[in-house]
Amino acid sequence: MPRYRMIVEYEGTGYSGWQRQQAGVLSIQEAIERAILASGQEEATVHACGRTDAGVHARGQVAHVTLAKNWPPFKLMEAVNFHLKPQPIALLDVSIVPDDWHARFSCIGRWYRYRILCRRAPPALDKGRVWSVGYKLDPNAMQAGADRLLGRHDFTSFRASLCQADSPIRTLDRLEVRAVEDEIQITAAARSFLHHQVRNMVGTLALVGQGKWTPDDVTRALEARNRSVAGPTAPAEGLYFMGAVYPEE
Amino acid sequence: MPRYRMIVEYEGTGYSGWQRQQAGVLSIQEAIERAILASGQEEATVHACGRTDAGVHARGQVAHVTLAKNWPPFKLMEAVNFHLKPQPIALLDVSIVPDDWHARFSCIGRWYRYRILCRRAPPALDKGRVWSVGYKLDPNAMQAGADRLLGRHDFTSFRASLCQADSPIRTLDRLEVRAVEDEIQITAAARSFLHHQVRNMVGTLALVGQGKWTPDDVTRALEARNRSVAGPTAPAEGLYFMGAVYPEE
Repeated sequence: MPRYRMIVEYEGTGYSGWQRQQAGVLSIQEAIERAILASGQEEATVHACGRTDAGVHARGQVAHVTLAKNWPPFKLMEAVNFHLKPQPIALLDVSIVPDDWHARFSCIGRWYRYRILCRRAPPALDKGRVWSVGYKLDPNAMQAGADRLLGRHDFTSFRASLCQADSPIRTLDRLEVRAVEDEIQITAAARSFLHHQVRNMVGTLALVGQGKWTPDDVTRALEARNRSVAGPTAPAEGLYFMGAVYPEE
Repeated sequence: MPRYRMIVEYEGTGYSGWQRQQAGVLSIQEAIERAILASGQEEATVHACGRTDAGVHARGQVAHVTLAKNWPPFKLMEAVNFHLKPQPIALLDVSIVPDDWHARFSCIGRWYRYRILCRRAPPALDKGRVWSVGYKLDPNAMQAGADRLLGRHDFTSFRASLCQADSPIRTLDRLEVRAVEDEIQITAAARSFLHHQVRNMVGTLALVGQGKWTPDDVTRALEARNRSVAGPTAPAEGLYFMGAVYPEE
């Protein structure tokens, strides 16, 4: 049975997140599985690289599904996109991968972007797609704070209490802060992240951007290995799963 | 009575456009006038620089309103934004202007951006905010076509039949085509535009981008002074009113 790799874009607002969770609230996964069912009468489970939370968006989520039917990849993409309408979910690409290829377990790199809107007025065009803080943040101070988190560390202070990972050790390869018009955009890359790690790092860097914290406070929070010492969790709506890297690429 | 200048951002989807039009469909103008009424019990007419069509968005629409009440501008902005919620309309700035300042008649420059999504998959995150053509366009050919429209011309071929302007003569100062990831973005600037002029120019340039038209065909269409000879009107959803220029700036 062929296995298909899918690149998925979605606006997470109104969905329960990637994974099936609450009764009555649709997940991105279910929406795609239903569209696959409508396309080819097959019930199948779609596995994602990063199981995003409710309200988190994706520009390049990676997923896979194994189907009995031998679809030309482009036709599968067209059929699923047709049945996904009018939902804000679309397959950007479909390709065939080996039977042992796994969107989550084969992945060797993930990257996210977080958008913070730094103006007094609420977002109109980007409602639900940015964290609207209502004030300016200092991108240089935030970058100095971000630099303290780079590398291999115990990220317990930035890990959700519900995180199921075996180890709190992660290697953060990239954490870049960029001012883009009236936004601060933070790009994070690592082999993998802990649950809420990006949002918790962003919530902490926002304290630095406001001048409430210094970069040294970030180091202290990291070293404390205690979630209650770091900053708050930034809201889901500013977060985008941008893409993933696999060994064959 | 003080006159207030307002910078407005909005997502035009679902609105009848800037101006009051159909019964039962709210316009951006009415939405703001209602929020002003709710803020200070004043009925007032809001005048815009560019009266955008249904579905057209704005990042920097300029408008003015004269009110009996003497508001600190920031307080007026806060009150109106509060009463606009949860609509995708926000005042980005409010300032006091002279009594003879007019958002439309004082304006000496306007600029728009048009976004074309050039991929097979429909837009998910940018649903309603881009023209999704479903295929690649050649930005260099489009720029060569765009260059033929620069300068002072009779733009009858690119003017809506319902256009109420006295003259079809306009001076196009800027028409730039830029490839940005899987989008083509077209930026247009002029003192003023005819009705549908940007969308009609974009529809024509899309023909050039597909290779169906050459830049010479653009010149021929312009010289024909006949709307039926130029390309189709690009859809409203890709168009953004970006900003306006005034003599005092």
